[in-house]
Amino acid sequence: MSTTRIEVVTIGDELLLGFTIDTNAAYLARSLASVGVHIVRRATVGDDASEIASAVGEALERTGAVITTGGLGPTSDDLTKQSIAALFGRGMHLDEEHFAWMEERWTKRFQRPLPATNRQQAMIPDGALKLENHHGSAPGIWLEDERGRWVAMLPGVPREMRGMTQDTLMPLVRARVSADTVVRSLTLRTTGIAESVLADRVESMGGGPLGVSLAYLPSIAGVDLRLTVRDLPEDEASRALSNAAERLRERLGNSIYGEDDDDLAAIVLDVCRTRNLTIGVAESCTGGLLGARLTAISGSSDVLRGGVIAYHNDVKMELLGVSDATLAAHGAVSEEVVREMAAGARRVARTNIGLAITGVAGPTGGTPTKPVGTVWIAADIDGDASSALHRMWGDRDEIRQRAAQWTLELLRLRLAAPAS
Amino acid sequence: MSTTRIEVVTIGDELLLGFTIDTNAAYLARSLASVGVHIVRRATVGDDASEIASAVGEALERTGAVITTGGLGPTSDDLTKQSIAALFGRGMHLDEEHFAWMEERWTKRFQRPLPATNRQQAMIPDGALKLENHHGSAPGIWLEDERGRWVAMLPGVPREMRGMTQDTLMPLVRARVSADTVVRSLTLRTTGIAESVLADRVESMGGGPLGVSLAYLPSIAGVDLRLTVRDLPEDEASRALSNAAERLRERLGNSIYGEDDDDLAAIVLDVCRTRNLTIGVAESCTGGLLGARLTAISGSSDVLRGGVIAYHNDVKMELLGVSDATLAAHGAVSEEVVREMAAGARRVARTNIGLAITGVAGPTGGTPTKPVGTVWIAADIDGDASSALHRMWGDRDEIRQRAAQWTLELLRLRLAAPAS
Repeated sequence: MSTTRIEVVTIGDELLLGFTIDTNAAYLARSLASVGVHIVRRATVGDDASEIASAVGEALERTGAVITTGGLGPTSDDLTKQSIAALFGRGMHLDEEHFAWMEERWTKRFQRPLPATNRQQAMIPDGALKLENHHGSAPGIWLEDERGRWVAMLPGVPREMRGMTQDTLMPLVRARVSADTVVRSLTLRTTGIAESVLADRVESMGGGPLGVSLAYLPSIAGVDLRLTVRDLPEDEASRALSNAAERLRERLGNSIYGEDDDDLAAIVLDVCRTRNLTIGVAESCTGGLLGARLTAISGSSDVLRGGVIAYHNDVKMELLGVSDATLAAHGAVSEEVVREMAAGARRVARTNIGLAITGVAGPTGGTPTKPVGTVWIAADIDGDASSALHRMWGDRDEIRQRAAQWTLELLRLRLAAPAS
Repeated sequence: MSTTRIEVVTIGDELLLGFTIDTNAAYLARSLASVGVHIVRRATVGDDASEIASAVGEALERTGAVITTGGLGPTSDDLTKQSIAALFGRGMHLDEEHFAWMEERWTKRFQRPLPATNRQQAMIPDGALKLENHHGSAPGIWLEDERGRWVAMLPGVPREMRGMTQDTLMPLVRARVSADTVVRSLTLRTTGIAESVLADRVESMGGGPLGVSLAYLPSIAGVDLRLTVRDLPEDEASRALSNAAERLRERLGNSIYGEDDDDLAAIVLDVCRTRNLTIGVAESCTGGLLGARLTAISGSSDVLRGGVIAYHNDVKMELLGVSDATLAAHGAVSEEVVREMAAGARRVARTNIGLAITGVAGPTGGTPTKPVGTVWIAADIDGDASSALHRMWGDRDEIRQRAAQWTLELLRLRLAAPAS
């Protein structure tokens, strides 16, 4: 039986009680959509044999193709394999090979014999195919009946589930799929521009409709524009997406900093690396967040030399050389101070570029003239500084994250501008 | 009909396609468990009228009580109300009061008339109860039939859904619930101790079984021990939990740094504040992450004065006063360097406490003697330094987060130790 419709059943009391957020289902959906398979329904049940059997059984009736996650562990809560084996009218047997592997691995690692309860992890339904797990000890299971209806059982631990999806599940699914159409999406990323401003610019665009669906997705990182095409053959889908992206890029120009999962910090680092520029940071209200964003990127040491967390005004003065006169006259959250901080960052880290942030992240500390959310940012390149005042919304965490993101964007736009 | 069993149906192509992670379901589960209501199954369907009707209909058959999220917006994709109205055999009508409110709000905010498509948001099923939305423009809906079977429809935007759950849903559910038992949990948090070590210590505990279920939940922050009681009257549940927690605390002592959502950074800051201690940081591989953790806490400025992001060795020498001889003799990732960094942090930030981190976060830069994951951390209190070498696992992000967390734990344990 070929299929492009699948159901997913995620299993676990943890999920049902809300202790764990189900990220596996979203991961599976994205992986499957890329080969033209639609998840048409998803169910979550607890560690209960009859609930598992009924949810999987109903899903099989509808689509003949089901993927489960969870319930493959060694404890008595783990009931997935036996519940689904019973649904298929199959018995269970010990997989000797896997059991020997588990025993050896356990003894080597823990210097003691494998607990008896772990034996269960090596039990598999009769006639099932074992799906290798390179990231854990529970194998996945593929069970298929004579009519071609199948259930793939994957572990619930996200790292194991993701590895197994790529290693072994996707090839099996692809071989059973007759998809001649796919769902594809492409995201263009912006930051520091309001959704309504973007929408106005997009809607005033000539040349008729985009021919793909467009969603505006605001987050702390900025507003993403997600283009999606559905139910088109693969080459047409790619063409439609790239045409639409091209038109948006013409319209929005340099406001788009990247695509899909692009990280603004990585993009800025790449530009600096290409141009042999180095960065130093000076952070007040963000307290290290901008440095952490930049150093999160492997290889950032070519560009980011270091910086100063100048939370207290003394540190601003003593380490960054901000003058006490400037602080007294304008306050710590001011254009004058942020520019002196950026210059100080360049000087102490001995870099071309100094980035600085000072603001009121809240929830306390706001004043009528400098309410919570008031943030000054600056980018100083070889002594030529740009600074900007933002009134940011959101809670302390959001304000700090936006401050770091918008400072990176200020630098990106400076570096993209034609030399004056 | 009174019930303690509920099903949840979350609605939206976004969820099914994996573009959005479903956090609403977990939130609802935790809220409902606290009043003794169990979610026994959860389903997710796309923006498709027949899928919505079938998923909600099947759930109603099983439990007579269903909560939906999503599909209440103004676009043609939003089909929840009409699908479920049809399932109940009800028509739809315009709620004049809500429509007038929407028109007024829109005109005031955007200085233009309400788009015709938004009219749909004011349509409600005949005989339905409107659930006020203080955080958005789509009202929730409560639809109940003559047999007492009900569906509560909430918006999909998490902020709106959460507000409405607390404001209006919970009182309605509570009135229909005959729960004389609840599900309660309590989490004890540890960091830097392996799950197997914790388990050995707990299992060697005398005094018989804990009487509650115990789960070990490892994450980057450490291993949490979650105690859960189910199906007990509220006062017995509280008593069983606190007895079990008491016994674990006796056993694990100071290894437990907090409960539930406690943040180690906040705990360390509180101890320092009480004892009038100030902190400076010196960060190499974490690049600001430790400073960001501490400054994420509102009010941290009493304690955290600042620090240095010393990514490049020049910055370690020039700003923190690490000697070039030490760097040359031992390398940047060494006990000698981390102790000089911690001393430097104290000196430049003029604080009692200096915290320092230097390590190989990877994925490149490892050597046979200092592989990826090698991290030295130090806490210097008034010139008395403790340092520790860790071999951390995981990817770059995990290694950096663990390094920051374990440094906070090193300080916490130092501060908790009896003065020598």
